[in-house]
Amino acid sequence: MAKNNISYRIDVDLPSAAYPVFIGDGSLNDKDFLGRQVRSKQVLIVSNARIAPLYLDTLKKAFADRQCDTVILADGERYKNQQSLTLIYDTLVSKRHHRDTTLIALGGGVVGDITGFAAATYQRGVAFIQIPTTLLAQVDASVGGKTAINHPLGKNLIGCFYQPQLVIIDTDTLHSLPQREFKAGLAEVIKYALIVGGDFLKQLTTFLQQNLSVDDKTKLQYLIAECCKIKADFVVKDEKEQGLRALLNLGHTFGHALEALSHYKRWLHGEAVAIGLYCAALMSERLGYINAALLEHIECMLDHAGLPYKIPGDIDLIQLRDMMSLDKKIKDNVLRFVLLKDPCHAFISSEVSEKILYQTLIDAVEGERND
Amino acid sequence: MAKNNISYRIDVDLPSAAYPVFIGDGSLNDKDFLGRQVRSKQVLIVSNARIAPLYLDTLKKAFADRQCDTVILADGERYKNQQSLTLIYDTLVSKRHHRDTTLIALGGGVVGDITGFAAATYQRGVAFIQIPTTLLAQVDASVGGKTAINHPLGKNLIGCFYQPQLVIIDTDTLHSLPQREFKAGLAEVIKYALIVGGDFLKQLTTFLQQNLSVDDKTKLQYLIAECCKIKADFVVKDEKEQGLRALLNLGHTFGHALEALSHYKRWLHGEAVAIGLYCAALMSERLGYINAALLEHIECMLDHAGLPYKIPGDIDLIQLRDMMSLDKKIKDNVLRFVLLKDPCHAFISSEVSEKILYQTLIDAVEGERND
Repeated sequence: MAKNNISYRIDVDLPSAAYPVFIGDGSLNDKDFLGRQVRSKQVLIVSNARIAPLYLDTLKKAFADRQCDTVILADGERYKNQQSLTLIYDTLVSKRHHRDTTLIALGGGVVGDITGFAAATYQRGVAFIQIPTTLLAQVDASVGGKTAINHPLGKNLIGCFYQPQLVIIDTDTLHSLPQREFKAGLAEVIKYALIVGGDFLKQLTTFLQQNLSVDDKTKLQYLIAECCKIKADFVVKDEKEQGLRALLNLGHTFGHALEALSHYKRWLHGEAVAIGLYCAALMSERLGYINAALLEHIECMLDHAGLPYKIPGDIDLIQLRDMMSLDKKIKDNVLRFVLLKDPCHAFISSEVSEKILYQTLIDAVEGERND
Repeated sequence: MAKNNISYRIDVDLPSAAYPVFIGDGSLNDKDFLGRQVRSKQVLIVSNARIAPLYLDTLKKAFADRQCDTVILADGERYKNQQSLTLIYDTLVSKRHHRDTTLIALGGGVVGDITGFAAATYQRGVAFIQIPTTLLAQVDASVGGKTAINHPLGKNLIGCFYQPQLVIIDTDTLHSLPQREFKAGLAEVIKYALIVGGDFLKQLTTFLQQNLSVDDKTKLQYLIAECCKIKADFVVKDEKEQGLRALLNLGHTFGHALEALSHYKRWLHGEAVAIGLYCAALMSERLGYINAALLEHIECMLDHAGLPYKIPGDIDLIQLRDMMSLDKKIKDNVLRFVLLKDPCHAFISSEVSEKILYQTLIDAVEGERND
């Protein structure tokens, strides 16, 4: 059995709810460690049909000394909905979980978001722990307390800010991750690198050129730790996204619209974000904020990561624009975009005209000449 | 047109969200005042089928200069459910309300609780204003940020703590309140008086002996202000009900169980609370915490208020006990009761045996001798 090695500990120092993020490997096999992390006499583990067969039995061993129930959801973003949420509520109620229970999210971003929302709203808030098993959830979704379900008309439209009491990242779980999901996770890593630029961007560029894989444990733990540090920093400064935290939405205005337009079926979240990052970079270049070299650099990174980044030719751009009308960053009825400036860093703009927006979308379509 | 007289202003001074409670009359007719209170360009008013015909048109006049949408729910506790919540979400989404919208709850506790929960969870939290139109909502539900919907198996099991940005109490609205609902509101006033005892208890006792009615504007505004002050004090000390705030649940363990058992159809919330207050007083007396004189005093108050306070003979006490197993105050699997001590004040006990609980329920049944 693998030893539990914690390589990094990042603290999210919110005044109302400080909590640690442990990054390492072997944690899921350490039942003493896991058992110590949960103080309550009741536990509900929420997972999905892909992850549960791999890790659920192991995790449950840590809670053999108390009431431990489980909910297994179908796998996929389109199940991050009211029906899945109701299933969690009904289980909590029928198994008589009290306000001092603990919910554990074992899975990717979908499981984490919906479990967090259930925890935020069951009996006006119970404890929850994130055990993210996808790269995307490990670098982004599991930290910072954004919880949500999707509305048929828009992504994450129903949700709360509600912090976990702990995040346990075990990179061993990445070995069971489909290659496509691994790549999708890289999109969020690229997002963080573009937001802060500097050494992290250089380092990631090198790793991607060297064909970063799931076996590069040390590199991956470093990347995950860097992303969690950046996120923790933004979250501590602006937990409820009144301003600064919105920068972490780079690429997401486009990405969320693509996901909603395709009913969450065509792309993984990270893939939609990859296209969104390219659109944001293209828009930034068209507006003169970044030069063509940086745009090309970003294209290369997405390409090295094996991610799609152009808008497919069959997408109706008017419908896509329309989907953006429910973006959560809209203020005074005006769409706001996260853009990039030279040297690489992010800022928010409410000055993007419809003309520039459409020109960006047209230029981002597959097969278009983008120069 | 009635002049807007604000008689009291109570401030709920939470560090994260301080807000005022205005108590007066004529406020609903003052469109300049109302218009000034809402900063956003979009407003959604949620009301019910009984209240909307009375005040909705008047209220809407205050927002003629901006987008103002409405949702009208059916009237009654049994509509405080997922279906009503979905209706609010769907309206917000289809009318494209953004994160800077404001929700306004115009109605009683049901409308306030569900609107608050929708505001807490739409786009991870938007502003909301409480305009309570029932005595019960004015003295209790509209202040303090408890938002919720009911689960088929238990009251308020799904919800959040989420504070309004303002509460406007216009006692003119009480003139349209059915007598039964007015009395139900008095149950929560009695609850506050029992929790703090002293002068407030004496004053309320006198008012009830004098047959307090909806026309006693000055007395009612005084009572409402006192209840809001007590509540604000508890909420500021313990917003998320980690301890002290649970005392405001006096009578509610019994009351919620009665409501759930009867599928929210048999009693108004305040009526169920009245029975619950009697049960809590009876249990306190049986355990020797209060004397027979105080128990009788409480019976007299409930009786003067015209409230039911005995458990009807057809209620299955075993089922009633079972319904308490989902009480939100349960800790380490143990039911906790809010009890009374001489001189009248509330405390929480986790020491009540099943035997005492059943004996209390049996003794509280209508037609039983309770001495």
